[in-house]
Amino acid sequence: MSKPIVLYSGGLDSTVLLWSLRPNVKALLFDYGQRHSKELKQAVQICQTHQIEWELADLQSIRELISSGSQTGNEPVPEGHYAEESMKATVVPNRNMIMLSIAVGWAVATKSPYVAWAAHAGDHPLYPDCRPDFFEALRNAIEIGNAWSNVTLQAPFILKTKAEIVKLGHQLGAPLDQTWSCYNSGPIHCGRCGTCVERQEAFALAEVDDPTEYVDTSFWKEKCK
Amino acid sequence: MSKPIVLYSGGLDSTVLLWSLRPNVKALLFDYGQRHSKELKQAVQICQTHQIEWELADLQSIRELISSGSQTGNEPVPEGHYAEESMKATVVPNRNMIMLSIAVGWAVATKSPYVAWAAHAGDHPLYPDCRPDFFEALRNAIEIGNAWSNVTLQAPFILKTKAEIVKLGHQLGAPLDQTWSCYNSGPIHCGRCGTCVERQEAFALAEVDDPTEYVDTSFWKEKCK
Repeated sequence: MSKPIVLYSGGLDSTVLLWSLRPNVKALLFDYGQRHSKELKQAVQICQTHQIEWELADLQSIRELISSGSQTGNEPVPEGHYAEESMKATVVPNRNMIMLSIAVGWAVATKSPYVAWAAHAGDHPLYPDCRPDFFEALRNAIEIGNAWSNVTLQAPFILKTKAEIVKLGHQLGAPLDQTWSCYNSGPIHCGRCGTCVERQEAFALAEVDDPTEYVDTSFWKEKCK
Repeated sequence: MSKPIVLYSGGLDSTVLLWSLRPNVKALLFDYGQRHSKELKQAVQICQTHQIEWELADLQSIRELISSGSQTGNEPVPEGHYAEESMKATVVPNRNMIMLSIAVGWAVATKSPYVAWAAHAGDHPLYPDCRPDFFEALRNAIEIGNAWSNVTLQAPFILKTKAEIVKLGHQLGAPLDQTWSCYNSGPIHCGRCGTCVERQEAFALAEVDDPTEYVDTSFWKEKCK
């Protein structure tokens, strides 16, 4: 039996998931022309530094087809709390189902027992395709459609808050400082976009020292009052 | 509201589906490095000849990741009836979920009301991901995950036999002669591979003259006794 597969972005949540399964795990990275391509670079670097087996699924060729909103297009990145209405602009249509489907294909081809996905409770208000009911429905479809292979889907963080994930990552010694959340691909985290605000809030709630460098370190406190 | 999307292979079933929705339809084609690339060429040609709006999703970049078995690899194409055990070698892991996920992404991005899929009853014995329970499970996941867009999945042929589809295509005046089924990309259909056997049997059962040229026109009768 091959290793389970983590859908790996180089962000905080999927890095902690990877660490919770190490060393018996392999990572699947995606290049879909995402604006915050620094996340992808960090994902590659973390895998290389820590000798984690990984593969890249290159979806750039279908980028135009599936893109809409700011993650792959040219709309401005919205500032503010992640859960705000404005953050809807960061959605790539059906992105999670596309990535999970490809990961399941790889799992079947390599006899991997399951795909692990780092969706968490903080994503629920904004993204229908990060919620428990979507996870259950997709897992059901995956199991029926791949009845010969017994592959399944797991989402161990689906009811966890980001603060709980930060706490777990800290306990596991995950390289949180090397993870990337910012939607702007500057040299350091901007501190103002939705994911930067969410990240700072999570470290604060977890009472874990935030090792991240931000351009703006106070904006999030206004937003999370 | 934009047009519905047909997952279009250039084969018989999806061509009839396309004709059942014309002119209010657009086609999504996939290049996943399939061995019977002639099917894809026929798909493009049919769309161009009949002025059907179409797009190509190029999945060649993830070909190695998702490929296994004869459809993209180098294993010999098995001869015989489509429903035989040997035909399992033609399966690309999780292919339908991958293609449908991308089609749904395109549907959301272009405000298309639904993705139409030509899975039919003849596929059920062989492919778990062509069966009604998979269709229902995936449609459920699609609707939950894309709750903002109301996109859905339809599979109007899911309980039809291939013979019924041939009959419908004949009634609709679909260009059945231009469709391609053969797993071998020769100049004409081989007549001996699983899809060629199934195709000839379907025309016979439908009592529709088969306009297809085959290298071997009698092999199927042995197989379908």
